[in-house]
Amino acid sequence: MTSALDLLSSVKTDFRSLARILTYVENDLPMAAMLLRSLQPDLNIPVIGVTGPPGAGKSTLINALIDHLAAGGNKVAVLAVDPTSPFNFGSLLGDRIRMAEQFTRNNVFIRSLATRGSLGGLSVKTIEMVDVLRAAGFDQVIVETVGVGQSEVEIAGLADVTIVVLVPGAGDEVQNMKSGVMEIADVFVVNKADRDGADAAVANLERMVHMKSLDVPVFKAVANRKEGIAPLAAYLTSPHPHADTRKLALATEKAWKLIAARRMQSIDKQQLRRALHEAMQLPDFNLYRFAAQYG
Amino acid sequence: MTSALDLLSSVKTDFRSLARILTYVENDLPMAAMLLRSLQPDLNIPVIGVTGPPGAGKSTLINALIDHLAAGGNKVAVLAVDPTSPFNFGSLLGDRIRMAEQFTRNNVFIRSLATRGSLGGLSVKTIEMVDVLRAAGFDQVIVETVGVGQSEVEIAGLADVTIVVLVPGAGDEVQNMKSGVMEIADVFVVNKADRDGADAAVANLERMVHMKSLDVPVFKAVANRKEGIAPLAAYLTSPHPHADTRKLALATEKAWKLIAARRMQSIDKQQLRRALHEAMQLPDFNLYRFAAQYG
Repeated sequence: MTSALDLLSSVKTDFRSLARILTYVENDLPMAAMLLRSLQPDLNIPVIGVTGPPGAGKSTLINALIDHLAAGGNKVAVLAVDPTSPFNFGSLLGDRIRMAEQFTRNNVFIRSLATRGSLGGLSVKTIEMVDVLRAAGFDQVIVETVGVGQSEVEIAGLADVTIVVLVPGAGDEVQNMKSGVMEIADVFVVNKADRDGADAAVANLERMVHMKSLDVPVFKAVANRKEGIAPLAAYLTSPHPHADTRKLALATEKAWKLIAARRMQSIDKQQLRRALHEAMQLPDFNLYRFAAQYG
Repeated sequence: MTSALDLLSSVKTDFRSLARILTYVENDLPMAAMLLRSLQPDLNIPVIGVTGPPGAGKSTLINALIDHLAAGGNKVAVLAVDPTSPFNFGSLLGDRIRMAEQFTRNNVFIRSLATRGSLGGLSVKTIEMVDVLRAAGFDQVIVETVGVGQSEVEIAGLADVTIVVLVPGAGDEVQNMKSGVMEIADVFVVNKADRDGADAAVANLERMVHMKSLDVPVFKAVANRKEGIAPLAAYLTSPHPHADTRKLALATEKAWKLIAARRMQSIDKQQLRRALHEAMQLPDFNLYRFAAQYG
């Protein structure tokens, strides 16, 4: 068995060591905690979050971004936090999208993370796996999450810059998720911009951004034809004015989740079950009073 | 302004009082905690969880179930925990499915819950809103969640009986989610059973259930034609042998989440931020060591 030190020393040069550390972390294997406490993640490596509704073309956009970044000499990692992502191996075999070329490149590393798990488990795992990737010498780490419900909020607590991908004509969708999306987007991309209504969608987003006095650019792209990628990539890789404030805010968010997870794990379920069994015999049992009084 | 006591006393007779309490709870308004501690939820009212992949026809099945149960004199509540559910008002207006008839009935109450929110927020909200509904004199409370990722696991910690809805030909899907789904299903429904492959799907599920020595029935239904609903409803409303053990297990799960949420909220983010700001100046800063040592 390879020692933790061997793994750590080769994490920057050997994808197999990297993959193994990620597996330890993903599955909470005994070595994981020690590995995480010994890692030196480079906080200057930008974590780029990509979110948006299913069908917006997130994976295709990421694919085009990888192409562009790798062609420019960058070493890129992708973590797909979404069971329905085409980056997921099962779907890839299903050939929903041809991304296999990326797997054979030396400077691109792709990993998917199943979203199965209990309360808060996903975010902690994602935080940990991103930190492993940031200790592995990549130039950019891209995290893809499906933009439904809480995952889009979670990504904002993890990524240095969050791209929200939309398609023309998704007017109602934008209305529905407007509040949440406006809060987390650092960049909008209107993908599939060869479709009708692309310019209207861009204008609509720009108006919303302007109304809220935000500094959020709106890009157009046709990701499956690799159009519109260069300006987006240039924006993503350029230094950003509030990077330091953001870094502290993100670290606070991440530390909070790690501490919260530890505190949750410290509750003894067997003991709780016994206490509840007794309390539930009482005629006026109320779960909320019980929980408020419990340890 | 209506007092909490007025609201509580009319929760069983007045849908407006019920809706108002649910709004307080959903939005964590000041009165919410007090209301929850004063409620007397009837733990004998079965909570029926309905989950499954998008497109399986969960909402159509629920609609048919409501019809059947209401026709039998039952008072039924539905909580749709899914932004894409047709029960969601936005989609309903979009006419994806005609469910408006249910909104005009006196003995059916439908409410949707946005899945926006932070770590664990969704499950706690769902637990609380279901308890409000169980204090409001319904005969059944149905909770719909979309079966992707963690929500399908969450529902198992909340519902007395969990229905997993699938469609014929979803072979790969079943393979992919097999492990998770087999653990949480109390009942399988193969919906859209007028399609090719329905019998094969049923046989396949029955084989899987048998292999694991589980006591999980498999029903066939064509929900949009209201076929196959009566035997399913009969099964759901009949008493189940392990109900008491399950009740304690569910209460433990719910109490655990409430206590966990309280412990998480007790972390002072401002203080954490200041401590982090200092720690991050050190050259060997590591988030995991920091979190392990923090309070």
